Amino acid sequence: MAFNDLFLRACRLEPVEMTPVWMMRQAGRFLATYRALRKKADFLTMCKTPELAAQATLLPIDELGVDAAILFSDILIPVEAMGMALDFTPAPVFAEPIRSEKQIQALRIPDPEESVPFVLEAIRILRRELTDRVPLIGFSGAPFTLATYMVEGSGSKNFIEVKRLMYQEPDLFAALMEKITETDTRYLNAQIAAGAQAVQIFDTWGGILTPEDYETYALPYTKEVIDGLNRDGVPVIHYVGTGSALLPLIKTAGSDVVGIDWRIRIDEARRILGPDTAVQGNFDPTALFAPVPEIQRRVKEILHRAGDAPGHIFNLGHGILPPTPEDHAKALIDAVHTYSRK
Amino acid sequence: MAFNDLFLRACRLEPVEMTPVWMMRQAGRFLATYRALRKKADFLTMCKTPELAAQATLLPIDELGVDAAILFSDILIPVEAMGMALDFTPAPVFAEPIRSEKQIQALRIPDPEESVPFVLEAIRILRRELTDRVPLIGFSGAPFTLATYMVEGSGSKNFIEVKRLMYQEPDLFAALMEKITETDTRYLNAQIAAGAQAVQIFDTWGGILTPEDYETYALPYTKEVIDGLNRDGVPVIHYVGTGSALLPLIKTAGSDVVGIDWRIRIDEARRILGPDTAVQGNFDPTALFAPVPEIQRRVKEILHRAGDAPGHIFNLGHGILPPTPEDHAKALIDAVHTYSRK
Repeated sequence: MAFNDLFLRACRLEPVEMTPVWMMRQAGRFLATYRALRKKADFLTMCKTPELAAQATLLPIDELGVDAAILFSDILIPVEAMGMALDFTPAPVFAEPIRSEKQIQALRIPDPEESVPFVLEAIRILRRELTDRVPLIGFSGAPFTLATYMVEGSGSKNFIEVKRLMYQEPDLFAALMEKITETDTRYLNAQIAAGAQAVQIFDTWGGILTPEDYETYALPYTKEVIDGLNRDGVPVIHYVGTGSALLPLIKTAGSDVVGIDWRIRIDEARRILGPDTAVQGNFDPTALFAPVPEIQRRVKEILHRAGDAPGHIFNLGHGILPPTPEDHAKALIDAVHTYSRK
Repeated sequence: MAFNDLFLRACRLEPVEMTPVWMMRQAGRFLATYRALRKKADFLTMCKTPELAAQATLLPIDELGVDAAILFSDILIPVEAMGMALDFTPAPVFAEPIRSEKQIQALRIPDPEESVPFVLEAIRILRRELTDRVPLIGFSGAPFTLATYMVEGSGSKNFIEVKRLMYQEPDLFAALMEKITETDTRYLNAQIAAGAQAVQIFDTWGGILTPEDYETYALPYTKEVIDGLNRDGVPVIHYVGTGSALLPLIKTAGSDVVGIDWRIRIDEARRILGPDTAVQGNFDPTALFAPVPEIQRRVKEILHRAGDAPGHIFNLGHGILPPTPEDHAKALIDAVHTYSRK
């Protein structure tokens, strides 16, 4: 097999013979083979066992024919290495969320080779396995999203605790964000050094903020991470959940690619982002519950709106949902390839 | 006291001497007096007892000095009258969610005077109580949001069941939406006939849809409700949660006022909506956890961005959260009045 570099070329705004496609959470519970693998180990053990993480990463490459692999891991892995006990129940939980200056002072800025060697080893294994196949994407959470989990202690509906810290103790919040930013930068650079061929920064919760708050409390730290990366030839993808209204700001963080959800039409997103930024998205993951002809119609519509200019990576606007029928996911991948082929 | 019609004048794009303000869920758990009242009766009993509903409605008028009252009730009250058993645990739950054609056929289109007389009686009581004070807003859920609860059976994270129905059985979904639309129109017209001086349509979940799906599955039904209202002198407010990216479509539903969340700057929203549509919003409810000077700064910023053109009703971008400090809510109301006074 020849190495398929469609994904990397699209990230670099180079011409492609067909639109590359992968799916956020493509190595996940919607795959029967993943659920079988998970019977051997719990989620954190999977993340921390390079062979298992690599095996999970490869499943959608084998089964779906996606054009990129994304490391099987979790955005909170480096946070645990900062000194916070992490559990999955199955949602992530920090038993002792950050609520004081003392806790922030106690956080470490860990050396990735020492603290998360299993992540880097999984990347090295995967690069060997994927040599003649597809590129490997590494990833991390954006500082704001990581801070949100660290302060709330878990997912949240209204994010009152992190907002309290932001608004009532802005200096403490900044001190926390600086430690996370440094950790994040080192973590992504270690992934790049280990062989990640692109990196995606997930700002899952950035879209809960007003534009002004996003600009003050989230954007500068993400920009600092991006500015600190050893990017030579390694595209950076920046995804902000529910971020449609923030696209003009997100562009200024300086990534090569911006990931968008399904709440905005992709032609409008491309207009806002301009010709120098590639776009990743924007299929509504719940539309995978539609009949296959309707999935195909929606793929065509997005491809049509994305237009002929280079720089579109097809993806979902959010992670694939566990009850998604596998054959519908496969139909999506096939439709992208079929309808976009030049 | 003289009747305060600031709110109605702002809805009608008439000049005002200061910006009117009210808060979504202003008669709610954040008020100690409301929590005391709730010790007498559960939530549904409160909704169904006109004297108690009226009493709750009046609390924020007495305590906060808001410029409008909004009926204490729930968007699912008319759905119960369609024939679905409703419970609050405290979140709303339908024990038998809609999953079949037979269930849709069995739904009634209820006569409001027969099925929800308590709502109309609460409005009549309130109009007497409020004669020399502020206007009374009635409300309903938008058809799409009501359908979402009816099909999911409760709130949802990913709305898979309603999407399944929409995408797999579009004719059934349309049949359901038509019954809801007719029910909703009658319900709001009955509120207007009973004395509601404005009505707000809450489309809490409209923002989960792609623009194309919003245009197909939600917008036409909301528009049909609005077109069917006896609007003579009664402004219609249309609020779509997480609807920033949908504003050009929302405008076409034809309301007098569009409610916006905090994810878009209000000047940008006004630019999109144009000078003929008033705007309601857009303070982030979590910013009420900020210190009072920061709340005041944010109020000034929104007033400044809203500009001098008539047609701004100050509000939160979503319902006020139960843990909100009461004195912070009061500080918001006072700041709007102080800083906007001509």
